[in-house]
Amino acid sequence: MKLIVAYDGASFSGWQSQASGNTIQDHLERAFRELTGRCLRVHGAGRTDSGVHALAQCAHIDLPDCGLPIARWPSALNALLPPEIRVMRCRLEPPKFHARFSAIGKVYKYRLWNAPILPPFERNRAWHVTSPLDQALIEATARRFVGTRDFAGFAANRGTPVKSSVRTIRSLKVRRGGALFTLEFDGDGFLYKMVRLIVGSLVRCGMGKESAAEVVTRLHSGKTHRARFVAPAEGLFLLRVRY
Amino acid sequence: MKLIVAYDGASFSGWQSQASGNTIQDHLERAFRELTGRCLRVHGAGRTDSGVHALAQCAHIDLPDCGLPIARWPSALNALLPPEIRVMRCRLEPPKFHARFSAIGKVYKYRLWNAPILPPFERNRAWHVTSPLDQALIEATARRFVGTRDFAGFAANRGTPVKSSVRTIRSLKVRRGGALFTLEFDGDGFLYKMVRLIVGSLVRCGMGKESAAEVVTRLHSGKTHRARFVAPAEGLFLLRVRY
Repeated sequence: MKLIVAYDGASFSGWQSQASGNTIQDHLERAFRELTGRCLRVHGAGRTDSGVHALAQCAHIDLPDCGLPIARWPSALNALLPPEIRVMRCRLEPPKFHARFSAIGKVYKYRLWNAPILPPFERNRAWHVTSPLDQALIEATARRFVGTRDFAGFAANRGTPVKSSVRTIRSLKVRRGGALFTLEFDGDGFLYKMVRLIVGSLVRCGMGKESAAEVVTRLHSGKTHRARFVAPAEGLFLLRVRY
Repeated sequence: MKLIVAYDGASFSGWQSQASGNTIQDHLERAFRELTGRCLRVHGAGRTDSGVHALAQCAHIDLPDCGLPIARWPSALNALLPPEIRVMRCRLEPPKFHARFSAIGKVYKYRLWNAPILPPFERNRAWHVTSPLDQALIEATARRFVGTRDFAGFAANRGTPVKSSVRTIRSLKVRRGGALFTLEFDGDGFLYKMVRLIVGSLVRCGMGKESAAEVVTRLHSGKTHRARFVAPAEGLFLLRVRY
């Protein structure tokens, strides 16, 4: 069964199961245990870090038949989940379907609020940047990230090495409406902290703290670098997973 | 000095000062006390109930000259306030200005989410209505509320009697975008719980639990009634106060 899950990441320690038990995966697996009486694994399309949000994270679970029709699963699960996590939809998929391995792309949005005061309703939902930002420079530099490249210079080490750090960013749209800046990334996959590292560099560039040339050099180097700036988790939203 | 204040009402016991100390007014007065060393009263344009939000509540305070330029007050206050309350702007006004008595109108928005599942980001920010709603009927009934009328049938008793329950609703706009319904009220003033009582009746009407004729009869009666439905606080936002 495939699940589409939305969550407000502010209250949780990220997606992936931890001893603390306060991750999205932990909450989902506890709800399934209560409903089925069995310890079943929920597989996510990807891990999101502590504080990162999702409008439509995807996951799957191999369910024994327990008589509950597919249409009833969302409300059965939601009754047991904290209100900050909602199962929006459930769907049957062929047995070959795997939330992570069947995914062919993801869309992330990063939100930042560029004004002296952060309105209460943007708290935990946007990065608050008070310095003025050069929008044209951010847009021009963002365009350099589109395409198939070795993004090693914009990846954090998670312990488990990845086979390849080559990824394709299909589009990176920068928009501004009043104080709200959004950067929307559409790509075939993203390395660990890649979106937040790219946003961090673009914003430093827009602040005048780093030149566009330096950022682009790091992008083209294909090497990991020490001094890097990771944009905070609260601005990041997983919008959807493509299959 | 006039203040424009935004707050996420979910964490507070409303605007007006209480023994608990956890109201917007209490937090503002404590911040002023810390900055000026004096107990000063903050006067709001109107009270909002526990759970009700504001994008631009107005207030004023008679300040002794303490050397701080007007432009510095918002950040000085915000440094002492919880992040769910933000002073967005401060402005000097003529001594005659009074946040409540000088107000000539207010704009409120009521948000409701009409779908089986409430997304996490709408929690505490919209009323979750799962039953299908008849939008055309809500719109048609809402139009009957526009104008100058005795709204006694849509007011709650706050203990302190009001001189007159005649108010003017200049416009009441009903909009729907996907699952989100918004009702925007623009009027010269509103009785206690008036917006939430009107929304409660319109929604019951849209659910088919009450006929439009019954709602309109109550409106025209100009009398208070027992059996009434108050829409919950979390969907209500004070958008602005007109002077």
